[in-house]
Amino acid sequence: MSLLLDNQFIELPPDKAINTKLFLDAVSHIPSFFDCLGSNVFSVIKSDINGNIMKIKAVYLKDPAKYVYLQDIVQAEREAHAAEWPKVGATLALMWLKRGLRFIQILLQSLADGERDENNPNLIRVNVTKAYEQALKKYHGWIVQKIFHVALLAAPYKSNFLKALSKGEEVKEEDCLINVRQFLVNYTATVDAIYEMYTNLNAELDYTV
Amino acid sequence: MSLLLDNQFIELPPDKAINTKLFLDAVSHIPSFFDCLGSNVFSVIKSDINGNIMKIKAVYLKDPAKYVYLQDIVQAEREAHAAEWPKVGATLALMWLKRGLRFIQILLQSLADGERDENNPNLIRVNVTKAYEQALKKYHGWIVQKIFHVALLAAPYKSNFLKALSKGEEVKEEDCLINVRQFLVNYTATVDAIYEMYTNLNAELDYTV
Ligand SMILES: CCCCCCCCCCCCC/C=C/[C@@H](O)[C@H](CO[C@@H]1O[C@H](CO)[C@H](O)[C@H](OS(=O)(=O)O)[C@H]1O)NC(=O)CCCCCCCCCCC
Ligand SMILES: CCCCCCCCCCCCC/C=C/[C@@H](O)[C@H](CO[C@@H]1O[C@H](CO)[C@H](O)[C@H](OS(=O)(=O)O)[C@H]1O)NC(=O)CCCCCCCCCCC
Repeated sequence: MSLLLDNQFIELPPDKAINTKLFLDAVSHIPSFFDCLGSNVFSVIKSDINGNIMKIKAVYLKDPAKYVYLQDIVQAEREAHAAEWPKVGATLALMWLKRGLRFIQILLQSLADGERDENNPNLIRVNVTKAYEQALKKYHGWIVQKIFHVALLAAPYKSNFLKALSKGEEVKEEDCLINVRQFLVNYTATVDAIYEMYTNLNAELDYTV
Repeated sequence: MSLLLDNQFIELPPDKAINTKLFLDAVSHIPSFFDCLGSNVFSVIKSDINGNIMKIKAVYLKDPAKYVYLQDIVQAEREAHAAEWPKVGATLALMWLKRGLRFIQILLQSLADGERDENNPNLIRVNVTKAYEQALKKYHGWIVQKIFHVALLAAPYKSNFLKALSKGEEVKEEDCLINVRQFLVNYTATVDAIYEMYTNLNAELDYTV
C-alpha cells in the first residue's frame, strides 16, 4: 500500500487550516495515482493535475513565511488580482486540483463501500462513473463528457487496480480496502476543508471546459 | 497571417542539416496553432507538443556548441543511452513532435489544395481526418482513435479557422491560402528532413499510445 499509506495526509487542526507545505508534500504523490489506472490515456490527466500542483508550489515558494496556510495564498491573490480573481494563479489551480482530489476520494470511497456492478464485479466503471458525475461532470462541456465515456473503456479491472494501489504486491481485496479506508479519513477531511474554504471565500466558479 | 508568416522556417542548406536554435525558435510558435482550433479540448495537445519542444530545448541548452544541428543531439543520445535509445530524451520528444508537425502540414496542405466536403464546404473535418490518418493514427491505440473522432466534433468552421490563422483579421479565403502555401515551402522541407534523419539513423519507433 505504499502509494496511499506512505503518504498519509495529516489530521487537520480544529480550525481546519491546511498547512501549505504539508499539503504540497502529500499531494505530490497523487499524480502517480493515475499510473495505477494502467493506460497512458490517463497521462493527460496526470499532467493536468501535476500542473495544478506546480502552480501552487511556485506561488508558495515565492514567500513560504507568508503562505503558511493554503488560505493565505487564496486571500493574497484576491487582493492582488481583484479583477480576474478567482480565475487566476494558485486560486484557479487549487479550484481544479480539489475536483481531481474529490474524484479520487469518491472513487476510493465507493470501492471501500463495496459498491459494484453485480454483473461485472471485477469492473470499476460504476465507481469511476459515480466519482465523475459527482466531482467533475458539471464542469465539462458535452464533448469532454463524451471523451470521458470513451476513456472509461480504458479503466482497469478492479483486481489490477487494487494491486497497483498496493504497489504491485498481491494483496487480498479486503486487506487493501482496510488500508484505503484508513487513508480516506484525513484525506476526505482535507478535501472537504478546501471545498469549505472556497465556499466561504466565494472563490468557486462553475464555468465548463 | 502573423501566426504563420511572422515565423517562417528558414530554407534548408543542401545537406538538409537543421540548425537547432533556428528550429526551436520557429517551432516555439507552433503550440499556439492549437488555440486556432478554438476549443480548449485542444489544450491537451498543445501541452503535449509544448512538452516536446521544452525537452529538446533543455538538451540543447546544456551544450549549444555541441548541438548546433538537430542531428547532433540524436546521435549524441544514441551513444549516451544505447540501451533505451531511441525511446529516450530529445530523440523521443522529436520523434513525437515531428508527427504533430506533419499533422499540421498535411492539414494546411489539404486546405491549400482546396480539398473539401462538397456537402459541408465550411467544415474542415475531411482535412483534419486526412492529416490524422496520415500522420498519427497508426501510433494511437483504438481508444485514442475513438477520442480523436469525438474531438473532431470540436473542430472549428473553415472560415473561423482561416480567420484565426490570420490573427483575427478578416481576410479573403484565397489570400489566406496564398500565405499558407508560401509558409508550407520551407516548413514541409524541414519536416521531411526530420523524417529522413529518423529513417537514416534508424531512430523511428512505431509503438502505439
Ligand atoms: C489526437 C487525438 C486526441 C484529440 C484530442 C483529445 C483531447 C482530450 C481532452 C480531454 C480532457 C482531458 C482532461 C483535462 C481537462 C482540463 O481541461 C480541465 C480543466 O483544466 C484546468 O483549466 C484551467 C483553465 O480553465 C487551468 O488551465 C487549470 O490549470 S492551472 O493549474 O494552470 O490553473 C487546469 O487544470 N481539468 C479537469 O477537468 C481536471 C480533471 C481531473 C481528473 C479527472 C479524472 C478523470 C478520470 C477518468 C477515468 C476514466
Ligand atoms: C475527464 C475526462 C477525460 C478523460 C481522459 C481523456 C484523455 C484523452 C487522451 C487523448 C490523447 C491526447 C493526445 C496526446 C497523445 C500523447 O499520448 C501522444 C504521445 O505522447 C508522447 O508520449 C511519449 C511517451 O510514449 C513521450 O511522453 C512524449 O513526450 S516527451 O517530450 O517527454 O518525449 C509524448 O509527446 N502524443 C501524440 O499523439 C501527439 C499528438 C499531436 C497532435 C495531434 C493533433 C490532433 C488534432 C485533433 C483535432 C481533432
